[in-house]
Parts: sequence; C-alpha cells; structure tokens
Amino acid sequence: MSIYNSKSTNNFAVNYNQIAAAANHLYSIAHRTPVITSATVNQLTKCEVFFKCENFQRTGSFKFRGAYNALSQLSETQKQSGVLTYSSGNHAQAIALAGKLLNIPTTIVMPNNAPEVKKSATRGYGAEIIFYDINQTTREKLAEEIAEKRGSTIIPPYDHPDIIAGQGTAALELIEEVGNLDLLLVCCGGGGLLSGCAIATKNLLKNCRVVGVEPKNADDATRSFYSKTLQSVHNPNTIADGARTPYLGKLNLPLILNYVDDMVTVSESAILRTMYFMWERMKLVIEPTGALAATALLEGIVKVSGVRVGVIISGGNVDLKQVGELFNRI
Amino acid sequence: MSIYNSKSTNNFAVNYNQIAAAANHLYSIAHRTPVITSATVNQLTKCEVFFKCENFQRTGSFKFRGAYNALSQLSETQKQSGVLTYSSGNHAQAIALAGKLLNIPTTIVMPNNAPEVKKSATRGYGAEIIFYDINQTTREKLAEEIAEKRGSTIIPPYDHPDIIAGQGTAALELIEEVGNLDLLLVCCGGGGLLSGCAIATKNLLKNCRVVGVEPKNADDATRSFYSKTLQSVHNPNTIADGARTPYLGKLNLPLILNYVDDMVTVSESAILRTMYFMWERMKLVIEPTGALAATALLEGIVKVSGVRVGVIISGGNVDLKQVGELFNRI
Repeated sequence: MSIYNSKSTNNFAVNYNQIAAAANHLYSIAHRTPVITSATVNQLTKCEVFFKCENFQRTGSFKFRGAYNALSQLSETQKQSGVLTYSSGNHAQAIALAGKLLNIPTTIVMPNNAPEVKKSATRGYGAEIIFYDINQTTREKLAEEIAEKRGSTIIPPYDHPDIIAGQGTAALELIEEVGNLDLLLVCCGGGGLLSGCAIATKNLLKNCRVVGVEPKNADDATRSFYSKTLQSVHNPNTIADGARTPYLGKLNLPLILNYVDDMVTVSESAILRTMYFMWERMKLVIEPTGALAATALLEGIVKVSGVRVGVIISGGNVDLKQVGELFNRI
Repeated sequence: MSIYNSKSTNNFAVNYNQIAAAANHLYSIAHRTPVITSATVNQLTKCEVFFKCENFQRTGSFKFRGAYNALSQLSETQKQSGVLTYSSGNHAQAIALAGKLLNIPTTIVMPNNAPEVKKSATRGYGAEIIFYDINQTTREKLAEEIAEKRGSTIIPPYDHPDIIAGQGTAALELIEEVGNLDLLLVCCGGGGLLSGCAIATKNLLKNCRVVGVEPKNADDATRSFYSKTLQSVHNPNTIADGARTPYLGKLNLPLILNYVDDMVTVSESAILRTMYFMWERMKLVIEPTGALAATALLEGIVKVSGVRVGVIISGGNVDLKQVGELFNRI
C-alpha cells in the first residue's frame, strides 16, 4: 500500500504543482499523444484499458517531455553555455531535439559501440556527440569533466526534478482525457516516468493504484521497493534496453516509495510476446521497454477484472531491420 | 477539376445523407480512429498534415465501417438467412466481425491459396470459409451459386451503396476533428473508400481537392478516371494487395468521376520507402496499401506547399514475420 499523504508532498523533490507547470511548458510543443483502446484487449483482460501512446511522442518516446521541461527552465547564461548529458538511448535524442528547439547547444556522451541508428538520430537533431570507451571510463565521470571544462549544465536522464515533473505530464494528460482509472501501469528503468506519473495520478485520482513494471532480469527497482533501500543491477540481460539502468535515481526512490503501490517483474519471453501482440493486433510500433507495462496486464502478472486500467507505452524506437529476426523467435 | 454540383447528388448511388446516417449506425461500435500529426512530416512536406489512422480501426482496416453499415441495415429475414462475400483480405475479416456483432451468420468465399494468417483471423471472428481453386472457377460465380442455394445476401467489397457510405465516414470524422483541409489523399483499389470519402469531403469542404492514389502497376482507376470509361488490370504485380482489384465498381466509377479532382500513381519502391518511413518515424504498423496516399505526398507526386492535407491510412494488416525481409530490400 502507498503511504501517500497529500500533506507530506513538500518533503519531496517534486510535487504536483511542478507537473502542472511542466504541462504548461510543454503545451503545443510536445505532442498530446493519443490514447488508444482495443476491443480485443478489453475482451481478453475483462477490463477497460486505455493505452497512452508515448511512442507517438516527438523523438519516439516520453523522454522529450522531461528534456524539454528541464531545458526550458534554464537561465539565459546556462542556455548559452549549453547542456550535456550521457545516454545512448531515448534521452539523448530528446535532449538533442529540445536543445535544437530552444537554441541551446547540446553535447551527448555516448559509448563508442552505440548503435549507428541512435548515433545518426542524435546527430540529426544537431547535437555534438562525444564517444567514450566503456572499458576505459564511466560516462558520469567523463560528463562531469567535460561539463566543468565548458561550464555546461548536466541534465541527467531521470534523477532531476524537472525531468521527473516533465515525465509526469504523460499521466496527467491520460487522466484528463479518460477520467477515472482504478489502476495505472508504468514501466520502470531509472524511475523518472514512474515517479512523475505516480505523483500526478495520486493527486488527481487518490484511489487509483499505481504499479511499476520492470524486467525480471533487471529487478533492482522492485528489490529497492520491497527492501526500502537502494538496490542495483549490473549490465542486466534484457531486451528492454530502457530498463537496463543500474539503479533508481536518488530523487526517484523516495518518490516511488511514497507514491507507488506495488512493483512487479515480467520475463523476457512475456515481454516479447506482448510486444508482438501489440504490433500485430494494435498496429503500434513499440520498443521492448514500451511493452513492459502492458505485459504485466496481458500476461496476468497483475490480476484485475472489471476495472479501468491505464497503461503507459513509453516509446517506439526500435531497429526495424532487426525486428523480423526478433519476432521469428516467438 | 471536379464537376461536383450539390444539386446533382441525387443522380448517384450514394449521397451525403447516407454517410451521415452511416456515422450514426457506427457510433460507439466502430472505433473513432485517432488523427496523428508528425512534426517531421510537416517539416519535410512544408504542409500541415493530418493522418487518419484506419489501421487502428476494428479488424485493422477501414473495411469494418462499410461492412457493419451494410449488415446493420439488412431486414430481419435477410439477417436470418446470412450474408456471403468473396475476399481474401480485409473485407472478409470486416464482414466476419460485423456478422458476429449483429448475430448474422457469415460465409466467406476465399481462394485456397490465401495466407494462413488471413484464414485464421477470419475464422477467429466466427465466419464459415468456403475455399475455391482460382484455376477452376471465379469467386463471383461461386458466390452467386452458394448465395442462391442458401438464400443468403451477397455483400461485395466495394460496389454497394451501404459499403461506400460506411467508408465515407472516415473522411467525415477526419474533417469533424481537424476542420478545414485544402487537400485529401485517399488510396484506391475498387474505389469504395475513395468514392465515399470524396462525397463526404465535397459536401463538408467544397474547396478541398480530393486526389486518389493507386500503384503504378495497378493503374486501372487512373486510366478509367482520365478516359471516363471503365478500364481494367489483370493480376497486377504490386505489394499493395488492397489495390490489386481488377477494376472500379460500377457504382464507384461515376462517383469518382464526379467528386474526385485527380488520380495519381506511385511506384513500388516509393510505396516501400514510405511504408518504412511511417513505421520507423511515425511508429505506425501499416500495410503497403495503407502507405499509398502518404506516398503521393512524401515522394512529391502531388506537389503542394503551405496547405492543410488529410491523408487516409487505410489499414495495418501485414505479416510481421515477413516484414523484416521486406524492409531489408530497402
């Protein structure tokens, strides 16, 4: 059970007002992504299910919400000195596009073995990329060195109040559109999306349960949730690359402990089956991480019936030339 | 230029009132499919583009609109005697589901070499399938024989007023949602979707141009449009299987001549490039036929700039296990 109490929100790094403010910053810049329903899913689950499709968000994932919200609030001096982040994934593209739109120079620290498709997408938005050898240095250390030299501001992928507030707007929009929900399912990597969405949900619908979902093979957040202390995982073997983060953020863990009702894990084969189902039946190009929340529902990990369920689909960035091979494993 | 004149609509098989009535029949049964926009597409085309996503329609294509509209208007006697159609594609699944929802027995005449995935989807909705050997008989002849024996009603895929009226609700909904458009692009096989959408558009937005798009390798409708007489094509070699129809319907041709402003054709490689782009950048699972209308815009076949463009995405039924091979051709 959540220990949420509206009077205690001021003790945390992020509160609902910051999410409402983020929604204003993002207005007419981020996509108000569609909510999709499926008669087949409703029949299979015996629930009324609403999918918030962040795969249709700009840059192909929810990450644009947090990135733009954070960059738009920098001072003029900070904007001129540029921002820097470390990511080989969706946060990199999100920072690059947000920087382009706000005319802020962006630098991305990325491992030299990052997929070509991600390098070119990030470059396409005009970011400078600095590569590093994962055997020689850590990304955080290199990022700090460069940021200090250049005077640029580091915007990390999830452990930042403006990032968390931005990601929370996904749940805010979903609830604005569909009204009451009994359950919200959200995937979890570093915890930015989950903590932001949980704050928004508990403030708008105090009886709605919020459940985080992560891969069994990368279950650090679930262990952290149950032990109430930060747990980690090292290079987890999961197709859900957005959930390969080693641990929850320092700001995210207390928010999750306060606002989230439960955490569950799902197997690799269940993620792949769900991803295939959502491509085939729902016609959605989603990445494996984007299928996590739906997996918990469709595979019966979270057992519910006759209720209204929100599911956040986090993103859709996947290499189409490799997806045939992936689906032929099923 | 269209020779459309609102005073002449009564001479045609379908008028706008039938489309408005179809929208009522479909209310809360068909999905009101989302309209997706893409900043990337707007930038590339220098237009404001609105994609009406019928790949998210029930059964995965717009065909459900016409099928349900037609079946819902049968008499009680007709309903009890069942309906019959010939199709190996999206119309078959649409009739099967519409029959299931309305408690009408459905029979589908299908070639014995139809893909397994289409057979099982059609059976999954509870239809009876009768196979025929394409070298021994034609589907129309076999369908008529069976219909006569059983007293069942044939609902053809496009050459039927209630089918045309149903398909027109796709454009009706799009215009209701986005308001004014300067151009609407619609794919064309037998002409059901194109003629229905053209009637709706010309009645709601008299200055909006309507342009039909078909594969270069199956250009019978374009030749029919320019010659003003019915032209045909035999087993055309196109990946856009929904546009492999041999000729326009008898009811559809005069409607297209009256309400459609122009017809254009697109190459196979252009269809494939556009399909790939829409999967990769827009995160939409669409079938090759579903990419036709967008191809005319994105490949510069229809040259426009600074205008508001509607694009109908017709469907998303495609074999995912084969799509990797398809995309690796690019």
